[in-house]
Amino acid sequence: MGRWKLTIEYHGGPFVGWQRQESHPSAQQALEEAARRLDPSVAHVIGAGRTDAGVHALGQVAHLDMSRDWEPFRLRAALNHHLSPAPIAVTAAQLVRDDFHARFDAVERGYLYRILDRPAPATVDRGLVWRVARPLDVAAMNAAARALVGHHDFTTFRASQCQALSPLKTLDALDVARVGAEARVRARARSFLHNQVRSMVGALVEVGLGRWDAERLRGSLAARSRAACARVAPPDGLYLEFVRYPEPEETPR
Amino acid sequence: MGRWKLTIEYHGGPFVGWQRQESHPSAQQALEEAARRLDPSVAHVIGAGRTDAGVHALGQVAHLDMSRDWEPFRLRAALNHHLSPAPIAVTAAQLVRDDFHARFDAVERGYLYRILDRPAPATVDRGLVWRVARPLDVAAMNAAARALVGHHDFTTFRASQCQALSPLKTLDALDVARVGAEARVRARARSFLHNQVRSMVGALVEVGLGRWDAERLRGSLAARSRAACARVAPPDGLYLEFVRYPEPEETPR
Repeated sequence: MGRWKLTIEYHGGPFVGWQRQESHPSAQQALEEAARRLDPSVAHVIGAGRTDAGVHALGQVAHLDMSRDWEPFRLRAALNHHLSPAPIAVTAAQLVRDDFHARFDAVERGYLYRILDRPAPATVDRGLVWRVARPLDVAAMNAAARALVGHHDFTTFRASQCQALSPLKTLDALDVARVGAEARVRARARSFLHNQVRSMVGALVEVGLGRWDAERLRGSLAARSRAACARVAPPDGLYLEFVRYPEPEETPR
Repeated sequence: MGRWKLTIEYHGGPFVGWQRQESHPSAQQALEEAARRLDPSVAHVIGAGRTDAGVHALGQVAHLDMSRDWEPFRLRAALNHHLSPAPIAVTAAQLVRDDFHARFDAVERGYLYRILDRPAPATVDRGLVWRVARPLDVAAMNAAARALVGHHDFTTFRASQCQALSPLKTLDALDVARVGAEARVRARARSFLHNQVRSMVGALVEVGLGRWDAERLRGSLAARSRAACARVAPPDGLYLEFVRYPEPEETPR
Protein backbone atom coordinates (compact mmCIF):
# COMPACT_ATOMS: atom_id res chain seq x y z
CA MET A 1 0.00 0.00 0.00
CA GLY A 2 1.02 3.59 -0.39
CA ARG A 3 1.72 6.16 -3.07
CA TRP A 4 3.69 5.24 -6.16
CA LYS A 5 5.63 7.39 -8.56
CA LEU A 6 5.59 5.92 -12.06
CA THR A 7 7.86 6.88 -14.93
CA ILE A 8 6.02 6.33 -18.20
CA GLU A 9 6.94 6.14 -21.87
CA TYR A 10 4.41 6.22 -24.70
CA HIS A 11 3.98 6.73 -28.40
CA GLY A 12 1.56 9.60 -28.84
CA GLY A 13 0.06 8.27 -32.08
CA PRO A 14 -2.89 6.25 -30.77
CA PHE A 15 -3.76 8.59 -27.89
CA VAL A 16 -5.76 11.84 -27.71
CA GLY A 17 -3.01 12.93 -25.34
CA TRP A 18 -2.28 12.32 -21.69
CA GLN A 19 -5.58 13.47 -20.26
CA ARG A 20 -8.68 11.30 -20.06
CA GLN A 21 -11.44 12.28 -22.47
CA GLU A 22 -14.85 10.81 -23.09
CA SER A 23 -14.83 8.01 -25.67
CA HIS A 24 -11.24 8.53 -26.89
CA PRO A 25 -8.21 6.57 -25.68
CA SER A 26 -5.78 8.58 -23.57
CA ALA A 27 -2.54 7.60 -21.86
CA GLN A 28 -4.08 8.43 -18.47
CA GLN A 29 -7.06 6.18 -19.12
CA ALA A 30 -4.82 3.32 -20.27
CA LEU A 31 -2.86 3.55 -17.02
CA GLU A 32 -5.94 3.85 -14.83
CA GLU A 33 -7.53 0.81 -16.45
CA ALA A 34 -4.33 -1.23 -16.09
CA ALA A 35 -3.99 -0.21 -12.42
CA ARG A 36 -7.61 -1.12 -11.68
CA ARG A 37 -7.02 -4.62 -13.05
CA LEU A 38 -4.51 -4.98 -10.22
CA ASP A 39 -6.38 -3.00 -7.60
CA PRO A 40 -10.03 -1.94 -8.07
CA SER A 41 -9.57 0.76 -5.42
CA VAL A 42 -7.39 2.89 -7.72
CA ALA A 43 -9.21 6.16 -8.36
CA HIS A 44 -6.94 8.26 -10.55
CA VAL A 45 -3.48 8.34 -12.02
CA ILE A 46 -2.23 11.94 -11.83
CA GLY A 47 0.33 13.00 -14.44
CA ALA A 48 3.00 15.68 -14.26
CA GLY A 49 2.18 17.15 -17.63
CA ARG A 50 -0.70 17.05 -20.07
CA THR A 51 0.76 16.06 -23.42
CA ASP A 52 -1.40 16.84 -26.47
CA ALA A 53 -2.69 14.37 -29.04
CA GLY A 54 0.19 12.76 -30.92
CA VAL A 55 2.87 14.01 -28.52
CA HIS A 56 5.20 11.30 -27.21
CA ALA A 57 6.63 10.77 -23.75
CA LEU A 58 9.98 9.30 -22.81
CA GLY A 59 9.76 10.25 -19.14
CA GLN A 60 6.24 11.30 -18.18
CA VAL A 61 5.73 10.96 -14.41
CA ALA A 62 2.50 10.12 -12.62
CA HIS A 63 1.40 9.06 -9.16
CA LEU A 64 -1.29 6.71 -7.88
CA ASP A 65 -2.27 5.03 -4.61
CA MET A 66 -2.38 1.25 -4.23
CA SER A 67 -4.21 -0.51 -1.39
CA ARG A 68 -1.71 -3.34 -0.95
CA ASP A 69 2.06 -3.76 -0.90
CA TRP A 70 4.06 -4.39 -4.08
CA GLU A 71 7.62 -5.10 -4.99
CA PRO A 72 8.51 -2.24 -7.38
CA PHE A 73 9.61 -4.52 -10.22
CA ARG A 74 6.47 -6.65 -9.85
CA LEU A 75 4.19 -3.62 -9.95
CA ARG A 76 5.96 -2.36 -13.08
CA ALA A 77 5.68 -5.77 -14.76
CA ALA A 78 2.01 -6.21 -13.79
CA LEU A 79 1.07 -2.76 -15.10
CA ASN A 80 2.97 -3.39 -18.34
CA HIS A 81 1.22 -6.72 -18.73
CA HIS A 82 -2.17 -5.01 -18.63
CA LEU A 83 -1.05 -2.00 -20.72
CA SER A 84 0.01 -4.32 -23.55
CA PRO A 85 -0.42 -4.16 -26.53
CA ALA A 86 -0.92 -0.37 -26.42
CA PRO A 87 2.38 1.47 -27.03
CA ILE A 88 2.69 2.68 -23.45
CA ALA A 89 4.89 1.23 -20.71
CA VAL A 90 5.94 1.92 -17.14
CA THR A 91 9.74 2.14 -17.14
CA ALA A 92 10.11 2.66 -13.37
CA ALA A 93 7.92 2.39 -10.26
CA GLN A 94 8.99 3.83 -6.92
CA LEU A 95 7.24 4.00 -3.56
CA VAL A 96 7.15 7.64 -2.38
CA ARG A 97 5.77 9.57 0.57
CA ASP A 98 2.00 9.85 0.83
CA ASP A 99 1.82 13.50 -0.14
CA PHE A 100 4.05 13.29 -3.23
CA HIS A 101 2.25 14.96 -6.14
CA ALA A 102 3.47 14.30 -9.67
CA ARG A 103 2.18 17.61 -11.00
CA PHE A 104 2.58 20.09 -8.16
CA ASP A 105 5.92 18.84 -6.84
CA ALA A 106 7.67 18.89 -10.22
CA VAL A 107 10.45 21.49 -10.33
CA GLU A 108 11.43 21.09 -13.99
CA ARG A 109 10.06 19.61 -17.19
CA GLY A 110 12.23 18.81 -20.17
CA TYR A 111 11.04 18.48 -23.75
CA LEU A 112 12.84 17.19 -26.81
CA TYR A 113 11.79 18.15 -30.33
CA ARG A 114 13.16 16.13 -33.27
CA ILE A 115 13.31 17.67 -36.76
CA LEU A 116 14.45 15.73 -39.84
CA ASP A 117 15.52 18.38 -42.36
CA ARG A 118 15.88 16.78 -45.76
CA PRO A 119 14.01 16.61 -49.08
CA ALA A 120 12.95 12.96 -48.73
CA PRO A 121 9.94 12.12 -46.54
CA ALA A 122 10.52 10.33 -43.23
CA THR A 123 10.14 6.54 -43.42
CA VAL A 124 11.63 4.63 -40.48
CA ASP A 125 11.01 7.63 -38.19
CA ARG A 126 7.63 8.61 -39.56
CA GLY A 127 5.41 9.95 -36.78
CA LEU A 128 8.51 10.40 -34.60
CA VAL A 129 9.97 13.51 -36.25
CA TRP A 130 8.86 16.68 -38.04
CA ARG A 131 10.21 16.43 -41.55
CA VAL A 132 11.17 19.87 -42.91
CA ALA A 133 12.05 19.68 -46.60
CA ARG A 134 14.88 22.23 -46.61
CA PRO A 135 18.13 22.19 -44.60
CA LEU A 136 18.12 24.11 -41.31
CA ASP A 137 20.88 26.41 -40.10
CA VAL A 138 21.15 24.87 -36.65
CA ALA A 139 23.79 27.34 -35.44
CA ALA A 140 21.52 30.27 -36.31
CA MET A 141 18.60 28.57 -34.53
CA ASN A 142 20.68 27.95 -31.42
CA ALA A 143 21.95 31.52 -31.31
CA ALA A 144 18.47 33.00 -31.83
CA ALA A 145 16.98 30.69 -29.19
CA ARG A 146 18.85 32.59 -26.46
CA ALA A 147 16.38 35.46 -26.83
CA LEU A 148 13.61 33.25 -25.44
CA VAL A 149 15.50 32.01 -22.37
CA GLY A 150 14.60 33.69 -19.09
CA HIS A 151 11.49 35.19 -17.52
CA HIS A 152 9.13 36.51 -20.20
CA ASP A 153 5.52 37.05 -21.16
CA PHE A 154 5.10 34.14 -23.63
CA THR A 155 1.68 35.20 -24.96
CA THR A 156 3.04 34.93 -28.52
CA PHE A 157 3.89 31.27 -27.98
CA ARG A 158 0.71 30.25 -26.17
CA ALA A 159 -2.30 28.41 -27.60
CA SER A 160 -5.50 30.44 -27.61
CA GLN A 161 -7.14 27.73 -25.47
CA CYS A 162 -4.33 27.82 -22.88
CA GLN A 163 -5.82 27.76 -19.36
CA ALA A 164 -2.82 29.08 -17.42
CA LEU A 165 -3.66 32.09 -15.25
CA SER A 166 -0.58 33.99 -16.38
CA PRO A 167 1.45 34.08 -19.61
CA LEU A 168 4.61 34.71 -17.56
CA LYS A 169 7.00 31.77 -17.51
CA THR A 170 10.70 31.26 -16.89
CA LEU A 171 12.39 29.26 -19.64
CA ASP A 172 15.53 27.70 -18.14
CA ALA A 173 17.10 26.49 -21.38
CA LEU A 174 16.42 26.30 -25.11
CA ASP A 175 19.15 24.61 -27.15
CA VAL A 176 19.35 23.47 -30.76
CA ALA A 177 21.96 20.96 -31.91
CA ARG A 178 22.52 18.66 -34.85
CA VAL A 179 22.47 14.94 -34.03
CA GLY A 180 23.14 12.88 -37.13
CA ALA A 181 20.61 13.83 -39.81
CA GLU A 182 18.36 15.60 -37.29
CA ALA A 183 18.10 19.02 -35.69
CA ARG A 184 17.15 18.53 -32.05
CA VAL A 185 15.64 21.21 -29.84
CA ARG A 186 15.66 20.79 -26.07
CA ALA A 187 13.63 23.03 -23.75
CA ARG A 188 13.61 23.07 -19.95
CA ALA A 189 11.37 25.02 -17.55
CA ARG A 190 9.46 24.54 -14.32
CA SER A 191 6.34 24.58 -16.45
CA PHE A 192 5.21 25.55 -19.94
CA LEU A 193 2.15 27.18 -21.44
CA HIS A 194 -0.11 25.13 -23.72
CA ASN A 195 1.65 24.61 -27.09
CA GLN A 196 4.61 26.71 -25.93
CA VAL A 197 7.32 24.29 -27.06
CA ARG A 198 5.69 23.59 -30.43
CA SER A 199 5.14 27.34 -30.97
CA MET A 200 8.76 28.15 -30.13
CA VAL A 201 9.99 25.35 -32.40
CA GLY A 202 7.84 26.67 -35.23
CA ALA A 203 9.51 30.08 -34.88
CA LEU A 204 13.01 28.57 -34.59
CA VAL A 205 12.43 26.68 -37.83
CA GLU A 206 11.67 30.01 -39.54
CA VAL A 207 15.09 31.15 -38.32
CA GLY A 208 16.71 27.90 -39.48
CA LEU A 209 15.21 28.34 -42.95
CA GLY A 210 16.54 31.91 -43.12
CA ARG A 211 13.07 33.46 -43.29
CA TRP A 212 13.35 35.03 -39.82
CA ASP A 213 16.44 36.51 -38.22
CA ALA A 214 17.16 36.64 -34.48
CA GLU A 215 15.79 40.19 -34.37
CA ARG A 216 12.45 39.06 -35.74
CA LEU A 217 12.30 36.28 -33.13
CA ARG A 218 12.94 38.85 -30.38
CA GLY A 219 10.25 41.08 -31.85
CA SER A 220 7.84 38.19 -31.98
CA LEU A 221 8.30 37.57 -28.24
CA ALA A 222 8.05 41.31 -27.45
CA ALA A 223 4.81 41.61 -29.45
CA ARG A 224 3.01 39.49 -26.82
CA SER A 225 0.48 38.57 -29.47
CA ARG A 226 -0.52 35.20 -30.86
CA ALA A 227 -0.59 36.86 -34.30
CA ALA A 228 3.19 37.33 -34.11
CA CYS A 229 3.75 33.56 -33.87
CA ALA A 230 4.92 31.37 -36.76
CA ARG A 231 3.17 28.09 -37.52
CA VAL A 232 2.96 25.68 -34.58
CA ALA A 233 5.21 22.65 -35.08
CA PRO A 234 3.31 19.34 -35.43
CA PRO A 235 3.02 16.98 -32.44
CA ASP A 236 4.99 14.16 -34.13
CA GLY A 237 8.42 15.51 -33.19
CA LEU A 238 7.65 16.39 -29.56
CA TYR A 239 8.67 14.26 -26.56
CA LEU A 240 8.16 14.94 -22.86
CA GLU A 241 11.68 13.81 -22.01
CA PHE A 242 11.80 14.09 -18.22
CA VAL A 243 10.17 15.58 -15.14
CA ARG A 244 12.45 16.51 -12.28
CA TYR A 245 11.63 16.59 -8.56
CA PRO A 246 13.60 17.83 -5.54
CA GLU A 247 15.59 14.89 -4.22
CA PRO A 248 13.70 14.50 -0.90
CA GLU A 249 10.38 14.10 -2.74
CA GLU A 250 11.57 10.83 -4.19
CA THR A 251 12.58 9.21 -0.93
CA PRO A 252 10.35 6.26 -0.10
CA ARG A 253 8.78 6.34 3.36
CA MET B 1 18.40 9.02 -69.99
CA GLY B 2 20.93 6.65 -68.52
CA ARG B 3 21.55 4.58 -65.47
CA TRP B 4 20.71 5.91 -62.02
CA LYS B 5 22.00 4.93 -58.62
CA LEU B 6 19.32 5.42 -55.97
CA THR B 7 19.88 5.47 -52.21
CA ILE B 8 16.75 4.22 -50.49
CA GLU B 9 15.36 4.26 -46.97
CA TYR B 10 12.39 2.20 -45.84
CA HIS B 11 10.54 0.86 -42.82
CA GLY B 12 10.48 -2.91 -43.16
CA GLY B 13 7.13 -3.33 -41.41
CA PRO B 14 4.74 -3.24 -44.37
CA PHE B 15 7.01 -5.07 -46.82
CA VAL B 16 7.75 -8.78 -47.39
CA GLY B 17 11.33 -7.58 -47.82
CA TRP B 18 13.27 -6.00 -50.64
CA GLN B 19 12.57 -8.59 -53.31
CA ARG B 20 9.44 -8.67 -55.43
CA GLN B 21 7.05 -11.52 -54.61
CA GLU B 22 3.70 -12.47 -56.06
CA SER B 23 0.77 -10.70 -54.39
CA HIS B 24 2.72 -9.23 -51.46
CA PRO B 25 4.10 -5.69 -51.29
CA SER B 26 7.89 -5.46 -51.50
CA ALA B 27 10.22 -2.48 -51.48
CA GLN B 28 11.46 -3.41 -54.97
CA GLN B 29 7.93 -3.52 -56.34
CA ALA B 30 7.08 -0.17 -54.74
CA LEU B 31 10.10 1.41 -56.46
CA GLU B 32 9.43 -0.25 -59.82
CA GLU B 33 5.82 0.92 -59.80
CA ALA B 34 6.83 4.47 -58.86
CA ALA B 35 9.49 4.52 -61.60
CA ARG B 36 7.04 3.26 -64.24
CA ARG B 37 4.67 6.11 -63.39
CA LEU B 38 7.47 8.39 -64.60
CA ASP B 39 8.78 6.19 -67.40
CA PRO B 40 6.87 3.14 -68.65
CA SER B 41 10.09 1.77 -70.15
CA VAL B 42 11.55 0.94 -66.72
CA ALA B 43 11.98 -2.82 -66.50
CA HIS B 44 13.55 -3.54 -63.14
CA VAL B 45 15.04 -1.82 -60.14
CA ILE B 46 18.03 -3.89 -59.00
CA GLY B 47 18.96 -3.69 -55.33
CA ALA B 48 22.33 -4.20 -53.64
CA GLY B 49 20.96 -6.47 -50.95
CA ARG B 50 17.84 -8.52 -50.33
CA THR B 51 16.50 -7.49 -46.96
CA ASP B 52 14.06 -9.92 -45.34
CA ALA B 53 10.50 -9.20 -44.26
CA GLY B 54 10.43 -6.59 -41.50
CA VAL B 55 14.07 -5.56 -41.96
CA HIS B 56 14.60 -1.81 -42.38
CA ALA B 57 16.94 0.08 -44.69
CA LEU B 58 18.68 3.38 -44.06
CA GLY B 59 20.94 3.16 -47.10
CA GLN B 60 19.82 0.46 -49.51
CA VAL B 61 21.20 1.12 -52.99
CA ALA B 62 19.56 0.19 -56.29
CA HIS B 63 19.99 1.01 -59.96
CA LEU B 64 17.57 1.51 -62.81
CA ASP B 65 17.59 2.85 -66.37
CA MET B 66 15.50 5.82 -67.45
CA SER B 67 14.74 6.64 -71.07
CA ARG B 68 14.88 10.43 -70.70
CA ASP B 69 17.04 12.98 -68.93
CA TRP B 70 16.33 14.10 -65.37
CA GLU B 71 17.69 16.59 -62.90
CA PRO B 72 18.74 14.41 -59.92
CA PHE B 73 16.66 16.33 -57.38
CA ARG B 74 13.61 16.21 -59.66
CA LEU B 75 13.89 12.47 -60.18
CA ARG B 76 14.18 11.96 -56.42
CA ALA B 77 11.16 14.18 -55.76
CA ALA B 78 9.07 12.55 -58.50
CA LEU B 79 9.84 9.04 -57.25
CA ASN B 80 9.04 10.06 -53.67
CA HIS B 81 5.77 11.59 -54.83
CA HIS B 82 4.69 8.26 -56.33
CA LEU B 83 6.09 6.17 -53.43
CA SER B 84 3.99 8.10 -50.93
CA PRO B 85 2.29 7.18 -48.59
CA ALA B 86 4.27 3.92 -48.26
CA PRO B 87 7.14 4.32 -45.75
CA ILE B 88 9.85 4.19 -48.40
CA ALA B 89 11.77 7.11 -49.86
CA VAL B 90 14.64 7.86 -52.22
CA THR B 91 17.16 9.92 -50.27
CA ALA B 92 19.62 10.40 -53.17
CA ALA B 93 19.63 9.90 -56.95
CA GLN B 94 22.83 10.00 -58.97
CA LEU B 95 23.52 9.44 -62.66
CA VAL B 96 26.20 6.74 -63.06
CA ARG B 97 27.95 4.95 -65.89
CA ASP B 98 25.86 2.55 -67.94
CA ASP B 99 27.41 -0.61 -66.55
CA PHE B 100 27.14 0.32 -62.85
CA HIS B 101 25.52 -2.59 -61.01
CA ALA B 102 24.12 -2.00 -57.53
CA ARG B 103 24.59 -5.60 -56.45
CA PHE B 104 27.74 -6.80 -58.20
CA ASP B 105 29.77 -3.60 -57.86
CA ALA B 106 29.21 -3.24 -54.11
CA VAL B 107 32.43 -3.68 -52.14
CA GLU B 108 30.98 -3.44 -48.65
CA ARG B 109 27.63 -3.66 -46.89
CA GLY B 110 27.03 -2.31 -43.42
CA TYR B 111 24.27 -3.41 -41.08
CA LEU B 112 23.10 -1.88 -37.81
CA TYR B 113 21.21 -3.89 -35.20
CA ARG B 114 19.42 -2.03 -32.39
CA ILE B 115 18.67 -3.79 -29.09
CA LEU B 116 16.69 -2.16 -26.27
CA ASP B 117 17.66 -4.08 -23.12
CA ARG B 118 15.24 -3.22 -20.34
CA PRO B 119 12.30 -4.79 -18.52
CA ALA B 120 9.65 -2.47 -20.01
CA PRO B 121 8.35 -3.19 -23.52
CA ALA B 122 9.32 -0.83 -26.35
CA THR B 123 6.76 1.91 -27.08
CA VAL B 124 8.06 4.82 -29.16
CA ASP B 125 10.59 2.50 -30.86
CA ARG B 126 8.33 -0.51 -31.21
CA GLY B 127 9.12 -2.37 -34.44
CA LEU B 128 12.43 -0.49 -34.64
CA VAL B 129 14.37 -2.39 -31.95
CA TRP B 130 14.63 -5.86 -30.43
CA ARG B 131 13.56 -5.50 -26.84
CA VAL B 132 15.51 -7.90 -24.58
CA ALA B 133 14.09 -7.92 -21.05
CA ARG B 134 17.39 -8.26 -19.16
CA PRO B 135 20.43 -5.95 -19.22
CA LEU B 136 23.20 -6.86 -21.65
CA ASP B 137 26.91 -6.81 -20.86
CA VAL B 138 27.93 -4.83 -23.93
CA ALA B 139 31.65 -4.99 -23.16
CA ALA B 140 31.50 -8.81 -23.04
CA MET B 141 29.56 -8.85 -26.33
CA ASN B 142 32.06 -6.56 -28.02
CA ALA B 143 35.03 -8.62 -26.82
CA ALA B 144 33.45 -11.93 -27.88
CA ALA B 145 32.47 -10.51 -31.28
CA ARG B 146 36.13 -10.40 -32.29
CA ALA B 147 36.07 -14.19 -32.69
CA LEU B 148 33.72 -13.83 -35.67
CA VAL B 149 35.73 -11.18 -37.53
CA GLY B 150 37.82 -12.44 -40.44
CA HIS B 151 37.52 -15.17 -43.07
CA HIS B 152 35.43 -18.08 -41.76
CA ASP B 153 32.99 -20.80 -42.66
CA PHE B 154 29.78 -19.21 -41.33
CA THR B 155 27.56 -22.30 -41.72
CA THR B 156 26.46 -21.93 -38.08
CA PHE B 157 25.14 -18.43 -38.79
CA ARG B 158 23.44 -19.18 -42.11
CA ALA B 159 19.74 -19.76 -42.73
CA SER B 160 18.88 -23.25 -43.97
CA GLN B 161 17.32 -21.68 -47.08
CA CYS B 162 20.46 -19.64 -47.86
CA GLN B 163 21.26 -19.84 -51.57
CA ALA B 164 24.92 -18.76 -51.47
CA LEU B 165 27.25 -21.24 -53.17
CA SER B 166 29.76 -21.13 -50.33
CA PRO B 167 29.46 -20.58 -46.56
CA LEU B 168 32.86 -18.85 -46.58
CA LYS B 169 32.68 -15.11 -45.95
CA THR B 170 35.03 -12.42 -44.70
CA LEU B 171 33.53 -10.36 -41.89
CA ASP B 172 35.35 -7.00 -41.87
CA ALA B 173 34.00 -5.72 -38.57
CA LEU B 174 31.57 -6.63 -35.80
CA ASP B 175 31.28 -4.07 -33.00
CA VAL B 176 28.92 -3.71 -30.06
CA ALA B 177 28.52 -0.41 -28.24
CA ARG B 178 26.04 1.20 -25.87
CA VAL B 179 24.23 4.25 -27.28
CA GLY B 180 21.88 5.70 -24.69
CA ALA B 181 19.50 2.98 -23.52
CA GLU B 182 20.38 0.72 -26.48
CA ALA B 183 23.03 -1.84 -27.32
CA ARG B 184 23.97 -1.34 -30.98
CA VAL B 185 25.71 -3.93 -33.10
CA ARG B 186 27.38 -2.92 -36.34
CA ALA B 187 28.58 -5.45 -38.93
CA ARG B 188 30.51 -4.82 -42.15
CA ALA B 189 31.45 -7.24 -44.94
CA ARG B 190 31.59 -7.39 -48.73
CA SER B 191 28.56 -9.66 -48.49
CA PHE B 192 26.65 -11.69 -45.93
CA LEU B 193 24.90 -15.05 -45.91
CA HIS B 194 21.14 -15.20 -45.50
CA ASN B 195 20.24 -14.38 -41.87
CA GLN B 196 23.94 -14.06 -40.98
CA VAL B 197 23.66 -10.76 -39.10
CA ARG B 198 20.53 -11.79 -37.20
CA SER B 199 22.12 -15.16 -36.34
CA MET B 200 25.31 -13.50 -35.07
CA VAL B 201 23.29 -10.99 -33.05
CA GLY B 202 21.28 -13.84 -31.50
CA ALA B 203 24.52 -15.46 -30.34
CA LEU B 204 25.98 -12.16 -29.10
CA VAL B 205 22.87 -11.60 -26.99
CA GLU B 206 23.48 -14.98 -25.32
CA VAL B 207 26.93 -13.64 -24.44
CA GLY B 208 25.46 -10.35 -23.23
CA LEU B 209 23.03 -12.21 -20.96
CA GLY B 210 25.89 -14.26 -19.50
CA ARG B 211 24.51 -17.55 -20.82
CA TRP B 212 27.37 -17.97 -23.34
CA ASP B 213 31.00 -17.05 -22.84
CA ALA B 214 33.41 -16.05 -25.61
CA GLU B 215 34.70 -19.65 -25.76
CA ARG B 216 31.22 -20.97 -26.49
CA LEU B 217 30.80 -18.39 -29.26
CA ARG B 218 34.10 -19.53 -30.81
CA GLY B 219 32.97 -23.14 -30.51
CA SER B 220 29.68 -22.30 -32.16
CA LEU B 221 31.49 -20.87 -35.18
CA ALA B 222 33.91 -23.81 -35.30
CA ALA B 223 31.04 -26.32 -35.20
CA ARG B 224 30.00 -25.24 -38.71
CA SER B 225 26.50 -26.48 -37.91
CA ARG B 226 23.18 -24.65 -37.84
CA ALA B 227 22.38 -26.63 -34.70
CA ALA B 228 25.15 -24.74 -32.87
CA CYS B 229 23.42 -21.40 -33.47
CA ALA B 230 21.43 -19.53 -30.82
CA ARG B 231 18.01 -18.10 -31.67
CA VAL B 232 17.94 -15.79 -34.68
CA ALA B 233 17.32 -12.17 -33.67
CA PRO B 234 13.99 -10.75 -34.93
CA PRO B 235 13.93 -8.51 -38.03
CA ASP B 236 12.66 -5.45 -36.12
CA GLY B 237 16.10 -4.33 -34.95
CA LEU B 238 17.96 -4.80 -38.24
CA TYR B 239 18.86 -1.97 -40.65
CA LEU B 240 20.81 -2.14 -43.91
CA GLU B 241 22.79 0.98 -43.05
CA PHE B 242 24.95 1.51 -46.14
CA VAL B 243 26.35 -0.06 -49.29
CA ARG B 244 29.78 1.08 -50.38
CA TYR B 245 31.19 1.19 -53.94
CA PRO B 246 34.67 1.93 -55.28
CA GLU B 247 34.87 5.67 -55.91
CA PRO B 248 35.15 5.48 -59.74
CA GLU B 249 31.91 3.48 -59.95
CA GLU B 250 29.98 6.48 -58.75
CA THR B 251 31.30 8.93 -61.31
CA PRO B 252 28.61 10.06 -63.73
CA ARG B 253 29.42 9.63 -67.40
